[in-house]
Amino acid sequence: MKAKPDCIPCLFRQALNTVRTVTDVPAVQVRVLKNLSRRLGRLSMNRTPAALSQPVYEIVSRVTGVKDPYARQKRENNAAALAMLPRLERLVRRSPDPLKAAIHLAAAGNIIDLGIGHDFDLKRDVARLMKQPFARDDYRAFLRDLKPGRRLLYLGDNCGEIVFDRILVEHLVARGLVVTFVVKSGPVINDATMRDARDTGMTRICPVIATGSNDIGVHWARVSPEFRRQAYAADLILAKGHGNFETCVGRPGNYYFLLKAKCDMVAQELGVKLGETVFKHARN
Amino acid sequence: MKAKPDCIPCLFRQALNTVRTVTDVPAVQVRVLKNLSRRLGRLSMNRTPAALSQPVYEIVSRVTGVKDPYARQKRENNAAALAMLPRLERLVRRSPDPLKAAIHLAAAGNIIDLGIGHDFDLKRDVARLMKQPFARDDYRAFLRDLKPGRRLLYLGDNCGEIVFDRILVEHLVARGLVVTFVVKSGPVINDATMRDARDTGMTRICPVIATGSNDIGVHWARVSPEFRRQAYAADLILAKGHGNFETCVGRPGNYYFLLKAKCDMVAQELGVKLGETVFKHARN
Repeated sequence: MKAKPDCIPCLFRQALNTVRTVTDVPAVQVRVLKNLSRRLGRLSMNRTPAALSQPVYEIVSRVTGVKDPYARQKRENNAAALAMLPRLERLVRRSPDPLKAAIHLAAAGNIIDLGIGHDFDLKRDVARLMKQPFARDDYRAFLRDLKPGRRLLYLGDNCGEIVFDRILVEHLVARGLVVTFVVKSGPVINDATMRDARDTGMTRICPVIATGSNDIGVHWARVSPEFRRQAYAADLILAKGHGNFETCVGRPGNYYFLLKAKCDMVAQELGVKLGETVFKHARN
Repeated sequence: MKAKPDCIPCLFRQALNTVRTVTDVPAVQVRVLKNLSRRLGRLSMNRTPAALSQPVYEIVSRVTGVKDPYARQKRENNAAALAMLPRLERLVRRSPDPLKAAIHLAAAGNIIDLGIGHDFDLKRDVARLMKQPFARDDYRAFLRDLKPGRRLLYLGDNCGEIVFDRILVEHLVARGLVVTFVVKSGPVINDATMRDARDTGMTRICPVIATGSNDIGVHWARVSPEFRRQAYAADLILAKGHGNFETCVGRPGNYYFLLKAKCDMVAQELGVKLGETVFKHARN
């Protein structure tokens, strides 16, 4: 999908949120925002929102000298989610339709805030989110698509969330699917990298590859040959979150998008309301 | 008060909201935002939020060729508020303390702000806001200050709101205060100008002067000699809204600030929560 004018104020908000994870010094925060404003003049809007916001994270790293601003938060989110893992697995196993429950759990992982101090709310929030129906639900089409031996490429999103994804991957593997999980090649926002796949046990469940770049979602001009081969060979692609949706919607392939619409632009593109969650099939 | 890093994303949001009142063409909206980003590089943060956002409105006018983007909304807001006038006057007159009710009504009028993008429902919000106590209420100090013959300078804010102000001005005049109402010298956001003072009958109630510029709030380096003389001669200054607060807080004078905190920065400066309304005395 193409970036919209609304993405521009959002870039500055993202930049401020990100630099704040590194420093409280207003002068440094302003330097990041002014850097971004200079860069914006040269940026084409003829790109995805994900690609448009990519420079935000480069600029924060360059100005602050911190290569991975979300490093601590990523580790904390993984740890918080791992601590919940046995309980989440039990929750899914005991559901009338465990696969469906695992999909809803993976969606919940895309929504909840795993920041520290949320532990009490976490349990309640996950249970509540799992009961919430999808605004668009192509679960039946997905079920028909799940033939043993088929190759499923699972495009991961955030840290913490990856633990929730792990449960869904286990259920897909148990059904005979040949699943490959995808992480980013380097730090970008709080997205999972190979380290996080190892830390959360994903690498023990299925093969894990990286996109080939540390771009938000999939930057198709910069992906590795390995990723490209797998993407074209996949019978199904399960794509989590905003970044993967923004960069994959309309691409050739048999996609299942699983995400919460966290801004009006993505909600419009999905044909749902802001804040709604979808499991949407799109075959091109 | 000084601008904060948070003001920068807000500038872009304001710019987008404002250009949208003029055109739906995304390319023009982007041109405004890119213009703003180029300008931002040269802007000092050592100024008030009001002064920082001033270029937003200049850029929208320059890029679109529309000098007064809110012209239609301003007329509509005045008309909507004038249509409510008899009912509002009755509401105030029948209150146990009409002056206090008129102050609360004038505060309620401050919710009508098209600049930052708040949706509003005039009748519902007015009734609700009038019942809401001020988070900081210096009404008693104000009462003690209201001696007949004293000069009160009333710094107006938005169109529509000016009709609400008119009721308060009438009550102040009835108490023997010598009131002068202040409008902007030219269009800026949806602020009242001399035309609006005439259209809403304010000029029949008390003398009306203009600040000397079409800046948001009071740009003290650009005010007219007439405004400056009146500001220094005033025994009390009643300042409505964000812009006047941002540009007058900390200035010498006997100020009563009447506003709703519409952003976190102003809420912090006032020591209240976002969305709360204050009637705050500050004498320097």
